[in-house]
Amino acid sequence: MTDLQSQPVSAARGAFDGVRHPGGAEPYYVASGNEVEVFGTAHAAGLPVMLKGPTGCGKTRFVEHMAWRLNRPLVTIACHDDLSASDLTGRYLIRGGETVWSDGPLTVAARMGAICYLDEVVEARQDTIVVLHPLTDDRRLLPIDKTGELVEAAPGFQLVISYNPGYQHALKDLKPSTRQRFVALEFDFPDAAREADIVMHEGGVDRAAATSLVRLSGRIRALRDQGLAEAPSTRLLVSTARLMARGIPAAQACRVALVNPLTDDPDLLAAISDLISATL
Amino acid sequence: MTDLQSQPVSAARGAFDGVRHPGGAEPYYVASGNEVEVFGTAHAAGLPVMLKGPTGCGKTRFVEHMAWRLNRPLVTIACHDDLSASDLTGRYLIRGGETVWSDGPLTVAARMGAICYLDEVVEARQDTIVVLHPLTDDRRLLPIDKTGELVEAAPGFQLVISYNPGYQHALKDLKPSTRQRFVALEFDFPDAAREADIVMHEGGVDRAAATSLVRLSGRIRALRDQGLAEAPSTRLLVSTARLMARGIPAAQACRVALVNPLTDDPDLLAAISDLISATL
Amino acid sequence: MTDLQSQPVSAARGAFDGVRHPGGAEPYYVASGNEVEVFGTAHAAGLPVMLKGPTGCGKTRFVEHMAWRLNRPLVTIACHDDLSASDLTGRYLIRGGETVWSDGPLTVAARMGAICYLDEVVEARQDTIVVLHPLTDDRRLLPIDKTGELVEAAPGFQLVISYNPGYQHALKDLKPSTRQRFVALEFDFPDAAREADIVMHEGGVDRAAATSLVRLSGRIRALRDQGLAEAPSTRLLVSTARLMARGIPAAQACRVALVNPLTDDPDLLAAISDLISATL
Amino acid sequence: MTDLQSQPVSAARGAFDGVRHPGGAEPYYVASGNEVEVFGTAHAAGLPVMLKGPTGCGKTRFVEHMAWRLNRPLVTIACHDDLSASDLTGRYLIRGGETVWSDGPLTVAARMGAICYLDEVVEARQDTIVVLHPLTDDRRLLPIDKTGELVEAAPGFQLVISYNPGYQHALKDLKPSTRQRFVALEFDFPDAAREADIVMHEGGVDRAAATSLVRLSGRIRALRDQGLAEAPSTRLLVSTARLMARGIPAAQACRVALVNPLTDDPDLLAAISDLISATL
Amino acid sequence: MTDLQSQPVSAARGAFDGVRHPGGAEPYYVASGNEVEVFGTAHAAGLPVMLKGPTGCGKTRFVEHMAWRLNRPLVTIACHDDLSASDLTGRYLIRGGETVWSDGPLTVAARMGAICYLDEVVEARQDTIVVLHPLTDDRRLLPIDKTGELVEAAPGFQLVISYNPGYQHALKDLKPSTRQRFVALEFDFPDAAREADIVMHEGGVDRAAATSLVRLSGRIRALRDQGLAEAPSTRLLVSTARLMARGIPAAQACRVALVNPLTDDPDLLAAISDLISATL
Amino acid sequence: MTDLQSQPVSAARGAFDGVRHPGGAEPYYVASGNEVEVFGTAHAAGLPVMLKGPTGCGKTRFVEHMAWRLNRPLVTIACHDDLSASDLTGRYLIRGGETVWSDGPLTVAARMGAICYLDEVVEARQDTIVVLHPLTDDRRLLPIDKTGELVEAAPGFQLVISYNPGYQHALKDLKPSTRQRFVALEFDFPDAAREADIVMHEGGVDRAAATSLVRLSGRIRALRDQGLAEAPSTRLLVSTARLMARGIPAAQACRVALVNPLTDDPDLLAAISDLISATL
Repeated sequence: MTDLQSQPVSAARGAFDGVRHPGGAEPYYVASGNEVEVFGTAHAAGLPVMLKGPTGCGKTRFVEHMAWRLNRPLVTIACHDDLSASDLTGRYLIRGGETVWSDGPLTVAARMGAICYLDEVVEARQDTIVVLHPLTDDRRLLPIDKTGELVEAAPGFQLVISYNPGYQHALKDLKPSTRQRFVALEFDFPDAAREADIVMHEGGVDRAAATSLVRLSGRIRALRDQGLAEAPSTRLLVSTARLMARGIPAAQACRVALVNPLTDDPDLLAAISDLISATL
Repeated sequence: MTDLQSQPVSAARGAFDGVRHPGGAEPYYVASGNEVEVFGTAHAAGLPVMLKGPTGCGKTRFVEHMAWRLNRPLVTIACHDDLSASDLTGRYLIRGGETVWSDGPLTVAARMGAICYLDEVVEARQDTIVVLHPLTDDRRLLPIDKTGELVEAAPGFQLVISYNPGYQHALKDLKPSTRQRFVALEFDFPDAAREADIVMHEGGVDRAAATSLVRLSGRIRALRDQGLAEAPSTRLLVSTARLMARGIPAAQACRVALVNPLTDDPDLLAAISDLISATL
Repeated sequence: MTDLQSQPVSAARGAFDGVRHPGGAEPYYVASGNEVEVFGTAHAAGLPVMLKGPTGCGKTRFVEHMAWRLNRPLVTIACHDDLSASDLTGRYLIRGGETVWSDGPLTVAARMGAICYLDEVVEARQDTIVVLHPLTDDRRLLPIDKTGELVEAAPGFQLVISYNPGYQHALKDLKPSTRQRFVALEFDFPDAAREADIVMHEGGVDRAAATSLVRLSGRIRALRDQGLAEAPSTRLLVSTARLMARGIPAAQACRVALVNPLTDDPDLLAAISDLISATL
Repeated sequence: MTDLQSQPVSAARGAFDGVRHPGGAEPYYVASGNEVEVFGTAHAAGLPVMLKGPTGCGKTRFVEHMAWRLNRPLVTIACHDDLSASDLTGRYLIRGGETVWSDGPLTVAARMGAICYLDEVVEARQDTIVVLHPLTDDRRLLPIDKTGELVEAAPGFQLVISYNPGYQHALKDLKPSTRQRFVALEFDFPDAAREADIVMHEGGVDRAAATSLVRLSGRIRALRDQGLAEAPSTRLLVSTARLMARGIPAAQACRVALVNPLTDDPDLLAAISDLISATL
Repeated sequence: MTDLQSQPVSAARGAFDGVRHPGGAEPYYVASGNEVEVFGTAHAAGLPVMLKGPTGCGKTRFVEHMAWRLNRPLVTIACHDDLSASDLTGRYLIRGGETVWSDGPLTVAARMGAICYLDEVVEARQDTIVVLHPLTDDRRLLPIDKTGELVEAAPGFQLVISYNPGYQHALKDLKPSTRQRFVALEFDFPDAAREADIVMHEGGVDRAAATSLVRLSGRIRALRDQGLAEAPSTRLLVSTARLMARGIPAAQACRVALVNPLTDDPDLLAAISDLISATL
Repeated sequence: MTDLQSQPVSAARGAFDGVRHPGGAEPYYVASGNEVEVFGTAHAAGLPVMLKGPTGCGKTRFVEHMAWRLNRPLVTIACHDDLSASDLTGRYLIRGGETVWSDGPLTVAARMGAICYLDEVVEARQDTIVVLHPLTDDRRLLPIDKTGELVEAAPGFQLVISYNPGYQHALKDLKPSTRQRFVALEFDFPDAAREADIVMHEGGVDRAAATSLVRLSGRIRALRDQGLAEAPSTRLLVSTARLMARGIPAAQACRVALVNPLTDDPDLLAAISDLISATL
């Protein structure tokens, strides 16, 4: 896992700033198992990685942490319905009357040996996802249709994708021929103790407040059988804590930062309000 | 909430006039709770805000008021089905035979530390909404796919979105992974006294007329169980008052400015006409 | 209602001829109520107007009449499925190797303080309609996404939209958040005497012929319960009268100009033919 | 109907050859009623005309005949799903590095006072059809969105559309607001004697052969209740006659030119073959 | 049928190589009836032709044969969903900073009097098909919307389309107004003796092997009632023969070149394998 | 099969690097039958080949092996929904103010006599697939619509497509007219002994570990009746082996590299975990 850290970062063809270069402070991350080791081994073995888990449970932070730890640049791409293959691989621009090629973020990442993170990859169109396939092979190639170039990924390059299996996309799912190209790590919300640590660290409240927010969150998650679309994320607890730390009363902070973002359903809102009164 | 007011407004890259610069008269706004404090705290804590509530209840006015109060520029974007990510982040134009980049309104807002208000955000396509995600993180970054630039939001930048949970969009809803990134403030129609104040102030009628319009409005809102798609907004009452203030008889002003805009259904029209006769 | 008539018409940016400039003969219009006064007051109060009513009942003529009466230029836009926001606000063109901006009709109207009439507005896409919203506010602003300019409507500008509530568009309707921005005037076919006047004036026939066409039209309208999609408009009566005035026999003129345009259904065609025989 | 024939044909802006200029031999047309007089009167009265009737019954020939008779140029546009408003009104082209405007066929026709014939107009998209509306008004204007020009139709201009009410387009129909703008002439297959004349004249066979083809056609038309999508057109009889006139035996000519084009259904093919054996 | 053979081939406007010029060896074709005479007569009479029949039964070869026989150039266009009218008629290109027009294959064919063959025409969009209509009229005109030119087809030009009535395209069918413009020749698989001749001639096997492949094919065609989507074409028999002629054992050659291309259904695959064992 | 190996590789028109040139080490491939001979014979006979079989069973490796063995360049194209005909045949680019043509990968392959491999061809749109048809004929032509050129495939050119009949694409399937143009080879997972060899060779584990992974895989494949969308591929076993070879414990390596990529279903995940405990 360390032999790649000393490799030079090769220069990208073209001016691209959208990369988080290695170095800087260690991104805060508390491991829940040996995901750090497995990711590092997959990186060393040249295997791409898929992160499965719910919204706001720390997948993005984990990738930032691993890029720091492996000393690799990080390229992040938020996927959506409209992300085209060209948005990933690059496009022709007109400069000085000439058509010049401009690398896209995936191409930049492949050339410089970066970690390339595609967030919520199921949101992308199939054609975008298929572009990733040759990069997951042994050969680690990125064929660029428009130029005919066959980019070989530099050492240290790794493809990472995330998705949330909890969404019920009848029409959107990863095809087996895509899924089976990735080592898949499961993520879930941290356990209560670890979540309280995070809320304290990131939200700026004391342990008592953090613990009580985590306890409240646990009770709200139990409402998922009653129609709650998704459980409250650690992110929401941190936001609530931040408002409390700046003087907003706890009940109101919970109302605006924890409850309202979860649902518009009056019955669920009332049930959660009761939970808040009972818990805080 | 005040420490940001003295920050200089950084220059945008390119010529963009679509910004309401700070200063000028205080936009008229009567608070219904402590929404001013919560919004200010969220702004200070770097948390984005979502405004939930029905049409015409004052969400837009509230944002204008807060931008004035926080002394920040305001960029407003009306969302619709066709709003592309490029409409937000920017696009290449041809100038003097060269392709030059032109910042979009979201990029301008991020660079100058403005409040960026996306009205009726559920109307936008998912790809547009996903572009907002990195700006809601701790890092407050706006990656621009087309140029590869990673814009860091200037201090004072804040993302604000509004939406109306009353609409029944089977196919259109905010995904949990989007919702859970925002502190959510609820809005509703003002109470009768406050609404009468607004109608007087903005419609130019005396208190008696304003009060009777508010009373009428309350009775019409009770018809929502009979098929009325949406309750009459404060905006409608103000329009009606303006016509009355210019000499249109009350019954006719109500007919054209309050009733006709609400529905085309003959039964509902008749029921509302009866209410008008009985109330005015 | 008269204080705006003396305002100068400000110069539009760019060459735009699609405007009916004020002046010329008074467009023929017979009022059915006090719609002239209400429209004038709404114009004076800066309130946008919606005209509701069936096909061919005189909505367009009314707007022409009001533009003449208020001495304002008139910009008319026929809405359709494919009308984009750019078609309204403007677009970039290439001139002399440069990208230059060209105002669209809505922008032209806003700059010169014209009356801007959007005919059959429900036909337009939501994104087009949403572009209108900021112009209906107190601030009367038109933000142009592509240039970042924020156009403030000149005095005298007024937005007018029309739509026909009789169509059953399951999928197409004005959203409440749009409807509630307009003062709404109802239109219907003129009463028999007024319609006969119009048919005489515009069709060039004598009162007897005009009266008998109006009587026939009334009987045909009674067939709407038997499947007739829409009642015959005054426009059809005028066309029929014109053919008669040029020597086509009444029965045949009715067949080609009144009956055939209404339906292809053999049963309805027969029923209407019987009505013609019985009436003329 | 003759006073327009002496009007000069005004020059079109730009190079457009797709016009059938007046003059030349009289296109062969046998009237079935007084459609020639009604069309001429509608032309004189400035009223647009709609031709309703089945495939291949002579609508196009009638328009050619009328253009010859009225001494007007003729512009024909075959409508289809993909015909855009720009295809009708014109578009910008790049010439010598400049964007120059090029009139579309509808604009050319309006400028030169031609008869503009839109064949199978229901096939066009609504946005294309809506573009026609202002040309059907009293004012006979063609607003060109892209340039802002308001073209006033030259004297002699007339809009003619055709459509086949027999098709069952659940989703495609002319809206009442379009239909009611046209004088509508009904067309049907010619009666037997007139059809035999046409088959002789255009197919090059003697009266006996022509009569027997017409008789066969009448019997086939009676099969429409058994699933035949559309009756055989006069056009098919002419094609069959042409093959016969060049030596193909009658039965085989009927098979390839009359029967096979009508249907692929084996049962219907057999039934029609029986009819051929019994008739010829 | 011979008087056109001496006509010069007129020069196409622009550089177009996609034409099979006349001359060369006679394409191998064994007639099954008098289709050669009927096609030649239709060509002489200026009538367009439609070829109906299943996949791989020789329609394309027949057109090549007729082009050779009539000494006309041949332009072939494979139709598909995405074939636009511009792909047929031509488009503007930028050359030396100017927009220059480039003829499409249909325009080239019309100018040079070629036979223009549109293969699987039902696959094309309606707008593409409608473009063909004016070329099937007496006037044989091709109006080019984009340039306004009205191209008159040169002598010898003939439109030929093919389609397979066996496909069950619920949504795709030729409209009667298109079908009735063509003389329609039916094609089917050749009879056993003729098919064996073809397999010998093109596959390079002896008569015994060819006969036994044809016999096998006949038995497989009988499985169409059991779910086989389409019968094996003569093309498949030729491929199988070619593998056999190069030493692949008959059973395996049948498996890969005759059976596997027909279906993926395990039951059908087993049934066909049994047939092979029983037949060869 | 060897006479083509000495043919020179003709130069492509334009700069295209996306080709795997012949030479280099033999790609590792263990044949399961005589697929090598059949492919070689089809290549010699000029017949295109279709590879049918599940994800990750070695189809791509087989093509690489055959290209090496036949000493031909290899062009690989991953098919997807958005792959246009232009992506295959080429497009016009602007260079030095001129429009210049740039060959696409299919054109390059045809010109240089390469093997052209279209992976997962059913994913492509029909229009893309139809472009392949003329290359599968005797004439081996590639008509390029945009330039009018008719490219004749160089000797040694061969079209190879793959698809997975296991997917249930109700709306996506190869049309018979496409299928029947290919010799079709069936692929399946290798037998246990051969699969263990592959896992050892590519995964870097000893025979015992490889054999136990293969045994586990066999048991998991038996779960397909319980809802498993697709069987674990040899690719997954290799990934698992690689993690094990780098020190990740077997159970955890199976969890992340074999089980998680297969499914998100909790019941299936539990069942597979039980299998792992019982097998390893």
